[in-house]
Amino acid sequence: MENKHPASDNTKLTRREALKLAGVGGLGLILGATGVKSLLPSASSSEKAAAAPVLADGIIPFYGKHQAGIITPMQDFICMGAFDLTTASLDDVRKLFQSWTAAAARLTAGKTADEESGSPHLPPADTGESAGLNPMRLTITFGLGASFFDERFGLSGKRPAALVDLPRFNSDEIRKEWSGGDVVVQVCANDPQVAFHALRNLARIARGKAVLHWVQEGFQRTGAADPSGSTPRNLMGFKDGTNNPKVSDPAVADEVVWVQPSDEPAWMTGGSYMVMRRIRMRIEVWDRSALDDQENTFGRHRDSGAPLGKTNEFDDLELDRKDANGNPVIPVNSHVALAHMEGKVKILRRGYSYSSGLDARTGQLDAGLLFICFNRDPRKQFIPMQQKLASVDLLNEYITHVGSGLYACLPGASEGGYIGDTLF
Amino acid sequence: MENKHPASDNTKLTRREALKLAGVGGLGLILGATGVKSLLPSASSSEKAAAAPVLADGIIPFYGKHQAGIITPMQDFICMGAFDLTTASLDDVRKLFQSWTAAAARLTAGKTADEESGSPHLPPADTGESAGLNPMRLTITFGLGASFFDERFGLSGKRPAALVDLPRFNSDEIRKEWSGGDVVVQVCANDPQVAFHALRNLARIARGKAVLHWVQEGFQRTGAADPSGSTPRNLMGFKDGTNNPKVSDPAVADEVVWVQPSDEPAWMTGGSYMVMRRIRMRIEVWDRSALDDQENTFGRHRDSGAPLGKTNEFDDLELDRKDANGNPVIPVNSHVALAHMEGKVKILRRGYSYSSGLDARTGQLDAGLLFICFNRDPRKQFIPMQQKLASVDLLNEYITHVGSGLYACLPGASEGGYIGDTLF
Repeated sequence: MENKHPASDNTKLTRREALKLAGVGGLGLILGATGVKSLLPSASSSEKAAAAPVLADGIIPFYGKHQAGIITPMQDFICMGAFDLTTASLDDVRKLFQSWTAAAARLTAGKTADEESGSPHLPPADTGESAGLNPMRLTITFGLGASFFDERFGLSGKRPAALVDLPRFNSDEIRKEWSGGDVVVQVCANDPQVAFHALRNLARIARGKAVLHWVQEGFQRTGAADPSGSTPRNLMGFKDGTNNPKVSDPAVADEVVWVQPSDEPAWMTGGSYMVMRRIRMRIEVWDRSALDDQENTFGRHRDSGAPLGKTNEFDDLELDRKDANGNPVIPVNSHVALAHMEGKVKILRRGYSYSSGLDARTGQLDAGLLFICFNRDPRKQFIPMQQKLASVDLLNEYITHVGSGLYACLPGASEGGYIGDTLF
Repeated sequence: MENKHPASDNTKLTRREALKLAGVGGLGLILGATGVKSLLPSASSSEKAAAAPVLADGIIPFYGKHQAGIITPMQDFICMGAFDLTTASLDDVRKLFQSWTAAAARLTAGKTADEESGSPHLPPADTGESAGLNPMRLTITFGLGASFFDERFGLSGKRPAALVDLPRFNSDEIRKEWSGGDVVVQVCANDPQVAFHALRNLARIARGKAVLHWVQEGFQRTGAADPSGSTPRNLMGFKDGTNNPKVSDPAVADEVVWVQPSDEPAWMTGGSYMVMRRIRMRIEVWDRSALDDQENTFGRHRDSGAPLGKTNEFDDLELDRKDANGNPVIPVNSHVALAHMEGKVKILRRGYSYSSGLDARTGQLDAGLLFICFNRDPRKQFIPMQQKLASVDLLNEYITHVGSGLYACLPGASEGGYIGDTLF
């Protein structure tokens, strides 16, 4: 991701908005800026500077032109799930998205999933494990998989051309239990319990209409572990996201991320396409490889994150530089050289590490990267980039893609509207 | 866990010790107390008050009479693993524990697992993903399973009588892949990447001598989500640990947790027995039950954590109170009533929540409680308590124990010594 954590539109609150949100959250978040910083350390200092003055940090508005959780500066944790619809009624689907929208707006504001009935003889409206916790920059982002547009709901004519079936990439070992789904819900927050709580309550609300198809947790280092907000490291020990596009610039976000009015279909204008890849790392093999092999694989120095032959993380790549023997300083099949795509193709990466115990089949760590990226058209961005990477990237010796999904993330909703109202 | 997070011996640093630790960590942690609090929010304010003045928060000393990570106030994350030894040589085992001790002392001080060789043609000595991160109260705690004392190392005569094979409890559905192991390593920290990094590097150091048997991650709410440090809630939404014994009192810790010189064997003096149970919650069933059923199951009010019929979390249980009809206000088969054990049997609970995606067999959330407790003699503490709970606890409708382990956690090591030196 982008190192400087630029403040997105989602985090720019006026003083009035902030006070209002803090009030409806009922969590007493109206604090001086210093107090907020000490309570909520996970946004980098530069992000805070850009977003100042902020009185009620920790709440990212749910409603807006775009869904939050896309160009929003990354939170520390993710709890993500895909649902399969069990209803065959479009009206049920519409109601589900209305219920989900209402619950997501409440949850991201630090409230319970719904008002309690007050009767002890009924199940609680909220499962309770986030009671008393701060909102922790919770975002909830909804997307639709290609299977959503099959014959069930009469919407097959509305399937976006960009919502393709992803091709099989070289060396893919995709497993169904970590892939696909009719609807994806990306929940991010600076606290794992807050994130889990949100996804769980959305699953509960879906009862009778949809069931979970997969769930995936992920993490990055916490803000308290790295208060300077430097580029996070992946589980290979390398900084990951140095060259992410600067989507704090609306022109860049429009170019790279947001579906434009000139794109088809109109109901996706202001939305974006999310790619999810569960990328298993061969941790034990990587850990036996020499430092120079590792650095040649990425094309960067491990400690500094600088391009090979350079000193600083943000130094220019200069892929045409040669050493004394006339060989490229940065190997042409290194990850940075391939992903650079001559500077013409960009995606917005928003990935997390995952660690999920041992792989019972191999006795090795089941850990790696929950790769997530957003792009305006995967046919022109993710897919060509991944085809190039999958064919020759030196990293392929150490990774395997085992889960996969492509989702049309809907435009944002206005208050009074709901996520999906441009489509249904 | 204990709500008030009392400062254990492990967190009481003199100013000199703190400065020294900060110096060797090389992480520039010498900050004013206010700065430290804002960087490291996860210790409760009462804990900080008890431990003040602290200049280098975030480092818990590794060496000492007892291992850290037992009565240490709980961190927010756990990454725990059990190893099976692949060597048949006691000398190899001794060398492994010496290497692990040296690495654990470095890691908990915020350093890399070992000094780097400086040669790019060798694998790095450290896997790198925690570079630049604060120490985050990392602790690493070692224990030995019953299988460690089989015929392989000639130590069967030294197996503690208290290190029994746990009986099968009513309704247990224990699975081998989440149970047992020759050696357990509990890694806790206020950051998941710091915790993962430590376990992974210990696994790497063990290469050729031991392999991982299981790995389990867990979490609680972060300190930033709950700066007041109130009792954390489990995934059933209830406060968990209200009645934990106050092990900040050394007499209580000696009575409940630490093996005493009068206990057998002598090499365990200053150690403790750890019980691990992976307890799967039937989240979907729980979420369909009425609030009064939930509260009768625990014997407490959900919101306040107070005993049924009382107002405040820390109000006395008064299990003999009757309602107007002469029935107990707190059901006799509720969790608190049974676990109370007439006040005569106590254990130190140190559990975490876990969420591990979906159970592919059932399509339901694979989430619950990674129950960990420490006790001086499981024959007199955990086992009788769990036999009572397993037979009649109302909670059994909603939980299943699927993983299990009992481990003899060795006494602490002095500088110059190593974990296990009282035994090997």
